[in-house]
Amino acid sequence: MTEKLEAQLKFLIEVDKMKGILRQTLTADGAKRENDAEHSWHFALAAIIFKEYAHSDIIDFDRVVRMALVHDLVEVYAGDTFAYDKKGYEDKEKREKEAADKLFSILDEEQGNELKGLWVEFEQNATPEAKYANALDRFMPLLLNFKTEGHTWKLRDDITSASVYERMEPVKYGIPPLWEVVCGIIEESVKRGYLKR
Amino acid sequence: MTEKLEAQLKFLIEVDKMKGILRQTLTADGAKRENDAEHSWHFALAAIIFKEYAHSDIIDFDRVVRMALVHDLVEVYAGDTFAYDKKGYEDKEKREKEAADKLFSILDEEQGNELKGLWVEFEQNATPEAKYANALDRFMPLLLNFKTEGHTWKLRDDITSASVYERMEPVKYGIPPLWEVVCGIIEESVKRGYLKR
Repeated sequence: MTEKLEAQLKFLIEVDKMKGILRQTLTADGAKRENDAEHSWHFALAAIIFKEYAHSDIIDFDRVVRMALVHDLVEVYAGDTFAYDKKGYEDKEKREKEAADKLFSILDEEQGNELKGLWVEFEQNATPEAKYANALDRFMPLLLNFKTEGHTWKLRDDITSASVYERMEPVKYGIPPLWEVVCGIIEESVKRGYLKR
Repeated sequence: MTEKLEAQLKFLIEVDKMKGILRQTLTADGAKRENDAEHSWHFALAAIIFKEYAHSDIIDFDRVVRMALVHDLVEVYAGDTFAYDKKGYEDKEKREKEAADKLFSILDEEQGNELKGLWVEFEQNATPEAKYANALDRFMPLLLNFKTEGHTWKLRDDITSASVYERMEPVKYGIPPLWEVVCGIIEESVKRGYLKR
């Protein structure tokens, strides 16, 4: 076995930890908290399903799918930061940068840089591909939150429809046709008492 | 909202059930049984990681990744069939065919057929893309089984190294460089008592 292949196997075992990193979001049936591996799969599948709504300036759609699969890998070491946790966000960038260096260096330099590049691109949110991906990364928990009667929105007193609108902004620019759905879900959630006005 | 978009949202909620369909395989840390969503994510990521070992006659590599994401969706209705459950395999094809018809018809015809086509291609295992995908679908649980001291191999008395070699055959043809790893893992597993000779 080559050294490279050995490193690849080690990497795949290491990222298996994603299956145990819990997010605040519940699965649609409300049965349990979703983990990072499940979220990454659901997000990648949604990327395929909604492909027709992608901006025409996306030149490499499959990079979006690869981005979905790797976008949360750094949480293997950095942990999940709750979307509405302002304190957690203060050092999120630093924690995740260190985690990325540690994780992607398991692989040989070329492949490690390739995967890290996808993560950096996602985080910088500047390319059309990254904007599409970030839109879905926000949209998927919104959908699950709606199905679970606003579960994560009720976790903190300071979460209101305004915070959710703000959190969902990337959808407006990344996948405009989904913005109407976002607004509909937020308004209906307020009406049903899932979310404070 | 268009009827099509409404159907797409319904589909994404329906397949969320993948997060609750348990396989026999444990996660690498042995903490819990892996579910279909986690497996699909890990498999899709492995497809990217091992890309360099793919046969040169694969013309659409990204179809492999899409296949990984959808290959188990029918289990939302058909359930998971344990790899070494001969009785379960008797009606697996019929159960999964019915499940596919039900699930993919949630989507509009064009998109439903596109996704169903990926599943059919995977099941038929005839194209280079499907062979690569099937190889990984077999390889990933082998890797996890080795990390968890042969957990699923101990579930039935009739599982021996010969059954595992047979089960792993698709790796030999789908991703030849991984076959050496498969043989190494099986032999080491026998030596350590994880698997009967």
